[in-house]
Amino acid sequence: MTTPLAGIFTPFIVPLDETGAINESELRRYIDWLIAKGVQGLYPNGSTGEFLRFTADERIRINTIACDQAAGRVAVLAGAAEANVCETLKACETYAKIGARAVAIVAPFYYRLSPDGVLAYFAEIGRQSPIDVTLYNIPMFASPIDVPTVQRLAQLPRIIGIKDSSGDMALMLRLMAAVQPQRPDFLFFTGWEAAMAPMLLMGCQGSVNATSGVVPELTGALFQAARTSAIDEARRLQFRLNRVFDVMIAPLDFPDGFRLGVGLRGFKMGVGRQPLGPIQLALRKSIEEKLRAILTEFGYLGAN
Amino acid sequence: MTTPLAGIFTPFIVPLDETGAINESELRRYIDWLIAKGVQGLYPNGSTGEFLRFTADERIRINTIACDQAAGRVAVLAGAAEANVCETLKACETYAKIGARAVAIVAPFYYRLSPDGVLAYFAEIGRQSPIDVTLYNIPMFASPIDVPTVQRLAQLPRIIGIKDSSGDMALMLRLMAAVQPQRPDFLFFTGWEAAMAPMLLMGCQGSVNATSGVVPELTGALFQAARTSAIDEARRLQFRLNRVFDVMIAPLDFPDGFRLGVGLRGFKMGVGRQPLGPIQLALRKSIEEKLRAILTEFGYLGAN
Amino acid sequence: MTTPLAGIFTPFIVPLDETGAINESELRRYIDWLIAKGVQGLYPNGSTGEFLRFTADERIRINTIACDQAAGRVAVLAGAAEANVCETLKACETYAKIGARAVAIVAPFYYRLSPDGVLAYFAEIGRQSPIDVTLYNIPMFASPIDVPTVQRLAQLPRIIGIKDSSGDMALMLRLMAAVQPQRPDFLFFTGWEAAMAPMLLMGCQGSVNATSGVVPELTGALFQAARTSAIDEARRLQFRLNRVFDVMIAPLDFPDGFRLGVGLRGFKMGVGRQPLGPIQLALRKSIEEKLRAILTEFGYLGAN
Amino acid sequence: MTTPLAGIFTPFIVPLDETGAINESELRRYIDWLIAKGVQGLYPNGSTGEFLRFTADERIRINTIACDQAAGRVAVLAGAAEANVCETLKACETYAKIGARAVAIVAPFYYRLSPDGVLAYFAEIGRQSPIDVTLYNIPMFASPIDVPTVQRLAQLPRIIGIKDSSGDMALMLRLMAAVQPQRPDFLFFTGWEAAMAPMLLMGCQGSVNATSGVVPELTGALFQAARTSAIDEARRLQFRLNRVFDVMIAPLDFPDGFRLGVGLRGFKMGVGRQPLGPIQLALRKSIEEKLRAILTEFGYLGAN
Repeated sequence: MTTPLAGIFTPFIVPLDETGAINESELRRYIDWLIAKGVQGLYPNGSTGEFLRFTADERIRINTIACDQAAGRVAVLAGAAEANVCETLKACETYAKIGARAVAIVAPFYYRLSPDGVLAYFAEIGRQSPIDVTLYNIPMFASPIDVPTVQRLAQLPRIIGIKDSSGDMALMLRLMAAVQPQRPDFLFFTGWEAAMAPMLLMGCQGSVNATSGVVPELTGALFQAARTSAIDEARRLQFRLNRVFDVMIAPLDFPDGFRLGVGLRGFKMGVGRQPLGPIQLALRKSIEEKLRAILTEFGYLGAN
Repeated sequence: MTTPLAGIFTPFIVPLDETGAINESELRRYIDWLIAKGVQGLYPNGSTGEFLRFTADERIRINTIACDQAAGRVAVLAGAAEANVCETLKACETYAKIGARAVAIVAPFYYRLSPDGVLAYFAEIGRQSPIDVTLYNIPMFASPIDVPTVQRLAQLPRIIGIKDSSGDMALMLRLMAAVQPQRPDFLFFTGWEAAMAPMLLMGCQGSVNATSGVVPELTGALFQAARTSAIDEARRLQFRLNRVFDVMIAPLDFPDGFRLGVGLRGFKMGVGRQPLGPIQLALRKSIEEKLRAILTEFGYLGAN
Repeated sequence: MTTPLAGIFTPFIVPLDETGAINESELRRYIDWLIAKGVQGLYPNGSTGEFLRFTADERIRINTIACDQAAGRVAVLAGAAEANVCETLKACETYAKIGARAVAIVAPFYYRLSPDGVLAYFAEIGRQSPIDVTLYNIPMFASPIDVPTVQRLAQLPRIIGIKDSSGDMALMLRLMAAVQPQRPDFLFFTGWEAAMAPMLLMGCQGSVNATSGVVPELTGALFQAARTSAIDEARRLQFRLNRVFDVMIAPLDFPDGFRLGVGLRGFKMGVGRQPLGPIQLALRKSIEEKLRAILTEFGYLGAN
Repeated sequence: MTTPLAGIFTPFIVPLDETGAINESELRRYIDWLIAKGVQGLYPNGSTGEFLRFTADERIRINTIACDQAAGRVAVLAGAAEANVCETLKACETYAKIGARAVAIVAPFYYRLSPDGVLAYFAEIGRQSPIDVTLYNIPMFASPIDVPTVQRLAQLPRIIGIKDSSGDMALMLRLMAAVQPQRPDFLFFTGWEAAMAPMLLMGCQGSVNATSGVVPELTGALFQAARTSAIDEARRLQFRLNRVFDVMIAPLDFPDGFRLGVGLRGFKMGVGRQPLGPIQLALRKSIEEKLRAILTEFGYLGAN
């Protein structure tokens, strides 16, 4: 409980070997690098981590490697969404035992649930989980978690915060206004780095973002600037961050641009599990060149 | 190969027991009833079948029970989407062995892939699958499969058709116009029963739809009317079908209204795996009453 | 009142001269041609007719020219949406006097109104209009008009029908089921020609569509086939129609592809009022060539 | 040119008399009040001002009253969007003559134009306007104006800024990063007051927002706090602002909640031109009570 839940948490991509299997040694090397670069936490099995493209057993293994390799140096927020509440709770038990600081659970996806359904889902998890839970709102991929739902879930002690990847500044402010009076310690993490500076300036304790897996130096500096109210510096770093982010987020299918980025930092990421078509294979080369140029300009290449 | 792929295929809901486990005996009884009521096929592990709320092992078991119980009386279109292409292909092999007629594979979901990514995904499956594959387009839940993508995938012999649940009539006509010249035998199934009559009149060979699991008599009659160009009768039955469908599709979260419906036909469906909130629990009662009244009016209750 | 409201109604584009003003003589020649080609009605000041890009005075003039030139040969459905209910009602009075058969009024646009607001708007018009009113539903551009709203508006004698441009087959069937029991004569026109055949087969009395301004022979033939239940012929003509429609509907900004099409049929349409950028100017040439090839293949060029 | 374009600009609602006509004396009194309360500018004929529900002549009259009554005390940003480029340019000439500081022009609406079409539209206006032009981006109602489009339009001297009502913080930052290097003086105004504090902290020079017409004291205080980097105070005022905004923005159809609010501040606003249905009439009473309570709590009632 002493590990602070604040700062930059990296939802890392898993390196794969030539057979498509998890490359454990490279993953451990990557985790060490992230910690050395100053990230405050790890978020295995997030959207960036392609949790859905791994089997349930592989997800356990990824979380286990993360906890083991972090070894208490940084907090681990273990992605724990499984097929249903029962399976998810089993996963929560496992992750409590292996030393995760908390779990993160995405709202039900595929089906778009009503707010009432989203509330019922998280309420059951929140009441039974043996480990702290953070809600994960990513409305472009999963059922949205709205303000009244968060307000009610914040009454459950086990539910300690929310990671919001909508990038909706007004929503974040409304969440804070709704929850903080009753629960001042509730955590608000932003998952949309293109608005990271204003989100932090307005009170988010941290950010879980894919770009931190590529340029942790930059996201770390932005976090420091924002938390010390150095507005001009935060703004300058935000514009810099956007240049890196924008080239990775599109037009390649997410998160392939980020896989490219981690590769440029010196890790053998392998080929992702989602097959690439000819358009993306061609795009990959041009994106890699653009990204290499930006990372070189910013001084991140040649000096790992 | 002798089982015809045409007509009504039921994407059945899986009965659960008090512990939330698969109620195999009730499932077998339900399958027998559906076959007795005249459905032409079964579609286990569809969206209605809540494939995502079962574990990978449970999905295999559900498909296995369906093939075993069908015992060649009707075709089984086994839902085979797994975590990635490799796992999906393993599932395809299993389902080929247990006697499924074909598999149905939903487009990649959660992430919204580009058309190029969707094409690459299905192309890899289509080239390697040991069993016939039908594409499953459901853009409200998964990445859309567009016309040029289907046109290109139809060049692979193993890809034999598409089930489209968008309900978009113009899209269906464009798919037919794009594919039939090169592949006259390609299958077009509609998954949106609210437009079933016109879809069949315009050339769909069949329909995979949730309502057929509740009133197979009605969907069967509509199929016959449409396929014999009895337009007025098809229209009359469509209006009747819509009354049943509309009360089940909303406002309860999908597919809970259909679970209610199957229950009214005399099966112990149990409680679904997605927890229900107070709003839905209250709605459930009123929806059940409305549905009971409609099914009674149409003569489906009291005469199973 | 003897003019039947059924069949193909053309929402014609207005020819402009070199100064951008209405080219009245060319418009009259175009109207004569449309009537000669067999359209059952005219719909001035529709979306295709770019009503918004004309001033209020110009809209009156366009409707007046249409009524005058039609001279009772075909029905005129005058687009009458103005800045507010008061102005719209004044327009209705004018169009009643000049011989329009009815007016068509699009749902409030720009602001997205609630169903209650849409109902209040049309109810006030329906209660006060001196001329029959058809509702115009085009949810991609204006506030949607939902099923309960149409059901309630159908209780007003002056509201005689709806033109739906959503292309949503299930919506059309639901509208019919909701309204016909109380109002058997209510008119259902489809505005989405890509689904015209099934819409007519399922009971629409006609279609208001932009393509009829380019190939009225084809839309007329499809109408006849559908209304005589010649399903195979209707389907064949629908596929043909889609080829013409699809090249005009995109990627040029609507309705510029249709302006191109009318030009190819021998009318001086002039340059539209919305300025074109370099991408569209380049596209225009390639679209014109594609369209010319299709119209030639179908025998519509060289034989006006 | 000496009037500074920064701060809070009020897109005021027009008071109507019992006949639905513009209540000029009340409008003049309202404008005086707004200026006395410290707003830096007026924005007649905005979305809040329901420009679309007035005739072209009325829009001229509203802009004229605003310029006349402001009499140089505050800047007037005259809404100038008319039926087409030609009419809009005529309006620009008029507003230049009557002393507007600049015009604001919303992107083409109803039709959703491609970025190329949006660029062509504004480029023609920008090249020919005799008065400075601000772009108005409100993607929920009109064609979106994207980053590359703004970047290119910023090369035209007459185009001096953008008002963005999307509320998309990341978009605003991308606009700034794209435009400021070439055009440091370009104006960025936010139109979404629910994110006003972070927008101003990140560099917006001002805000055009409907709430400033109801509680100009509050929006003015927030502007001062943000511009002096008083982050905590800005945040506190933002939460306060949201309470007022959220009750006015929904569930009443926009902008009726704001009309209610102005009425509570002591102005005879009359009944809006969009008819209200029974649901909204009932809502109106409860919203008015809620709003009165909040305004009383904040000390804005009883002390005009």
